[in-house]
Amino acid sequence: MFAAVSQLRLACAARHAASSLPAAGSQRNHFGPPSSRIAVFFRLAPIPMRTSRFFLSTLKEAPADAEVVSHKLMLRAGMIKRLAGGIYTWMPLGLRVVRKVEAIVREEMDRAGAIELSMPAVQPGELWQESGRWEKYGPELLRCKDRHQRDFVIGPTHEEVITDVVRREVKSYRQLPLHFYQIQVKFRDEIRPRFGVMRGREFLMKDGYSFHASFEDLQREYRNMFATYTRIFDRLGLKFRAVAADTGSIGGTGSHEFHVLAESGEDALAYCPQSDYAANVELAEALAPAGGRPPAGNALQKVATPGRTRCEDVADLLGVALHTTVKAIAVVLAGSEAAAGAFALILLRGDHSLNELKAQKLLGEFRFARDDEIQAALGCQPGYIGPVGISGIAVHADSSVAAMADFVCGANEAGFHLTGVNFARDLPEPTRVGDLRNVIAGDPSPDGKGRLELCRGIEVGHIFQLRKKYAEALKCSFLDEGGQSRIMEMGCYGIGVTRIVGAAIEQGHDERGIVFPAAIAPFAVCIVPMGYGKSAAVRAAADALYAELVAAGVDVLLDDRNERPGVMFAEMELIGVPHRVVVGERGLAEGRFEYKGRLDSEPRMVAMAEIGRFLQDRLCAA
Amino acid sequence: MFAAVSQLRLACAARHAASSLPAAGSQRNHFGPPSSRIAVFFRLAPIPMRTSRFFLSTLKEAPADAEVVSHKLMLRAGMIKRLAGGIYTWMPLGLRVVRKVEAIVREEMDRAGAIELSMPAVQPGELWQESGRWEKYGPELLRCKDRHQRDFVIGPTHEEVITDVVRREVKSYRQLPLHFYQIQVKFRDEIRPRFGVMRGREFLMKDGYSFHASFEDLQREYRNMFATYTRIFDRLGLKFRAVAADTGSIGGTGSHEFHVLAESGEDALAYCPQSDYAANVELAEALAPAGGRPPAGNALQKVATPGRTRCEDVADLLGVALHTTVKAIAVVLAGSEAAAGAFALILLRGDHSLNELKAQKLLGEFRFARDDEIQAALGCQPGYIGPVGISGIAVHADSSVAAMADFVCGANEAGFHLTGVNFARDLPEPTRVGDLRNVIAGDPSPDGKGRLELCRGIEVGHIFQLRKKYAEALKCSFLDEGGQSRIMEMGCYGIGVTRIVGAAIEQGHDERGIVFPAAIAPFAVCIVPMGYGKSAAVRAAADALYAELVAAGVDVLLDDRNERPGVMFAEMELIGVPHRVVVGERGLAEGRFEYKGRLDSEPRMVAMAEIGRFLQDRLCAA
Repeated sequence: MFAAVSQLRLACAARHAASSLPAAGSQRNHFGPPSSRIAVFFRLAPIPMRTSRFFLSTLKEAPADAEVVSHKLMLRAGMIKRLAGGIYTWMPLGLRVVRKVEAIVREEMDRAGAIELSMPAVQPGELWQESGRWEKYGPELLRCKDRHQRDFVIGPTHEEVITDVVRREVKSYRQLPLHFYQIQVKFRDEIRPRFGVMRGREFLMKDGYSFHASFEDLQREYRNMFATYTRIFDRLGLKFRAVAADTGSIGGTGSHEFHVLAESGEDALAYCPQSDYAANVELAEALAPAGGRPPAGNALQKVATPGRTRCEDVADLLGVALHTTVKAIAVVLAGSEAAAGAFALILLRGDHSLNELKAQKLLGEFRFARDDEIQAALGCQPGYIGPVGISGIAVHADSSVAAMADFVCGANEAGFHLTGVNFARDLPEPTRVGDLRNVIAGDPSPDGKGRLELCRGIEVGHIFQLRKKYAEALKCSFLDEGGQSRIMEMGCYGIGVTRIVGAAIEQGHDERGIVFPAAIAPFAVCIVPMGYGKSAAVRAAADALYAELVAAGVDVLLDDRNERPGVMFAEMELIGVPHRVVVGERGLAEGRFEYKGRLDSEPRMVAMAEIGRFLQDRLCAA
Repeated sequence: MFAAVSQLRLACAARHAASSLPAAGSQRNHFGPPSSRIAVFFRLAPIPMRTSRFFLSTLKEAPADAEVVSHKLMLRAGMIKRLAGGIYTWMPLGLRVVRKVEAIVREEMDRAGAIELSMPAVQPGELWQESGRWEKYGPELLRCKDRHQRDFVIGPTHEEVITDVVRREVKSYRQLPLHFYQIQVKFRDEIRPRFGVMRGREFLMKDGYSFHASFEDLQREYRNMFATYTRIFDRLGLKFRAVAADTGSIGGTGSHEFHVLAESGEDALAYCPQSDYAANVELAEALAPAGGRPPAGNALQKVATPGRTRCEDVADLLGVALHTTVKAIAVVLAGSEAAAGAFALILLRGDHSLNELKAQKLLGEFRFARDDEIQAALGCQPGYIGPVGISGIAVHADSSVAAMADFVCGANEAGFHLTGVNFARDLPEPTRVGDLRNVIAGDPSPDGKGRLELCRGIEVGHIFQLRKKYAEALKCSFLDEGGQSRIMEMGCYGIGVTRIVGAAIEQGHDERGIVFPAAIAPFAVCIVPMGYGKSAAVRAAADALYAELVAAGVDVLLDDRNERPGVMFAEMELIGVPHRVVVGERGLAEGRFEYKGRLDSEPRMVAMAEIGRFLQDRLCAA
């Protein structure tokens, strides 16, 4: 009856194999010829299912404490159940999605030459003391004592354990490079777990760790992982960006974050639509204005601005553009260059915001000055302070301020600002000039290829060049070709497996529910019979189609309950099944099934004899 | 070149499908027609591998602290690495075996109608307080406090969590029965972790929990699980027995243990080779002797037995058979029937041993009497005590003692025993007669079908009828057909996934290393080329054979290192690869490969054109 269906399996498998290009730069690319990928293709196919034998449990309304759409929809779809704050049971429906994510991650990691192992969740505290993180990690590290009062932690990450394994296993450069990974449960005792699985306490993570004899080889593997992660998120069907990132608390130098793009994302990203450039706003470089500073045009003037302590209010009052104003931020430096406790001003354009990370890089450690310190140094309260007429106080100007003429700033007198201010004429040139601000939309891209745009993202992957941070602390060394003992170079590579599920929903949803990418939908196809329990013809046709799709390796759900059609349609849309085939008596009489894609506005009729090829085209295109 | 290989995949898959009969008694047997099993077959096939891209790290000698053979061999093969006492990292080689066990368990659980989910490892202490196990579990329960000083435990089992899920999800009998399972990490803080992964602290377990509206339905699912477990251990290729078991500390009534048979097993089992009967020795019934007690034949006599305090020594001295002697065990009862602190004797035949569980069932709670209590009650020190000439002391005799005449026992006088002792004549009939002993080899089988034999086993699975123990404590109820609220009936079903790996090695090993069942060997086939790096012909033939086997879905390892043949052979045997194909120049010149099964004493030559069919026969037979 459905002749074309049986060709579906191999056709899709072959297409899949063709798209499975080896990773650039990997030393361990191939696990055999492309035909081996067929086996892997099947590994991705969970068990087809009948609703009567599954556990679907959807809700009309999400609990009130769910803040973001993914959390709401996951609760409504019955994918997860809360056990405690930030701790969830993955219900059968949700677990299917997790398993699909896992399978894609695992396959690409294997293909890239990483080797899977599995480390314990419970780790001895001694190793964390050895690495120094026992002290540094803080209360996010869940600690406990065993019955013998020995310290243990529930692993939030596994640098210590893997480094311990490698230092005991690897003696020679001949055994390097090595890349071990695992897909394993982690626990981080977040102070405020929220957004469901997006910032949970217990979560599933793919964490990989590579060990190298040289920095060059670490860089090669880093590029290999960059390519691998790109392939993983491509295959997951997500819109994402890899961005240069700060290394955060995990240590080391050189890292990229992989972000799923979604308006609700916690991270602000800057990217250039005309090029590959993308970076976390924290790190995106603001280029100094081209063309230099215009000549002074206006005279210095003191104007009354009572009650106007913000640039916006001053610009408003004076009827000038915000970008002609300058704000002064009072800080106390504690770096090596300045005397301890040195008071200083940072100048930014009124429409810009301070990038503390950049400021720290330029000025060293600092803190914001207290009101009393400002009063003591400038004789003025905050809101009206400025760089004119002060002495013995360093003034650090953002590059964009250094290029301004005739600007507006505080007069160091309560209720007054200055206009027509110019460097060299009204105040000395800045002590130092540099990039101190966050980029804004429209800034030139640092790669010179266009203008930046901003978006928001959810971090789902992160690759780091750890270098020797852990290897040094744990004395993880090897003998090089000359017989000399050397510390290994190390990289680490994480993917938030369960977080991806939430991020995918943040990116894909509509008013009817979840819109999953086909690669990770809990089921690829659902068959919804109209009157499965009543019409023998409908039942026979639905069963036959189900059997054919199962035989073709399609991940199909047959909704064999006797619910009303509207209920079944709504549930299948809520849980995000991409393809729906309706089997009804009227259609059967015409020799047709009704098909509707999850995002289609209207269903369409498909000849029964064509349904196999029809679905094949859609499934393989996904 | 290897024409027959390409037929291997489907032939094996078809055979596999044919053996995949649905479970008897299951309500959720089918997931579609047998052809769907092909997909599952592929799920069992991990990625083929080249040694140069894998991480093999074997040891010549096992560390001294490894006590049992499986622990030694797993360390030598590099399957696991110790992180802390009872906590191991599963290295890539070991993880492959774990994954194969997992896949078989998962497939059979799915087929039996259980639904997979995944519960958290970290559980709120409140739930354990609600069930009462917070107090009862003792120090095996690893407890910790989160940053808000709330109690948590690292789950050693999940009755509380699943019951909490179900009580919140299930309202009506229409939603029952339900069976949820997971394959998940567990932690039990064993006081003395030992035997490697056999009694570790962190381990992988399949735990399933079923919920029912009636006891009858629980019993149906219990039978379904009994059949499912039987199929799982069959497919794992293990010699095992299902035995009636004590329910132990987990609570409830009705349970079976599944034991892998191995001489080193911790548990003593009794079974009848002529029937299906099998039980833990703890529970195996000792039938009362047939035929009743013979008449008294000898006169009562007191004989000197200086320094002979054990029945064996007394029988030796007197030149009589051990089974004509009787030992008296002094106990203090604390049951409801006896007055608190009542002193009593238990009589057993000299060649029998006390079964404390049976004694407890018959007599209630008791403890062994202290020496001073024995002296006070009998005026005699232990070693010479007996049931003759005492008054006001209850005497509980094992059935076999009650059937004895002319027996030997202590005289209640240091250095003396009595011979020719007879009930009714020399002492009153026993206060109570019953089954108080452990069975021994040769005892009649309780099912009347033959004689018992004893063996030792390693418990790898356990099924329980929990009944309402947890459902009652956690108020897990449903509305029945009449609208009445009732407490659910509950079953639970565990398999020690990682323990199975150790147990399989205890059962399968020889002087050269591990002998894995084919179903869970880390690789099914290894190709060992002689001079892979030197001979272009050898390399080409080995690569071609590898490619063909990979294409056929065979889990093959190509040892492409340039080690000496002896080293490669020894390693492949140590890690337990069942089938070895050697590719050498001489053989190639003759058009032949060398084949050797792991247990074959000699290799044999196989024509290259035949190797596919040859391996197919062996792989499918496994």
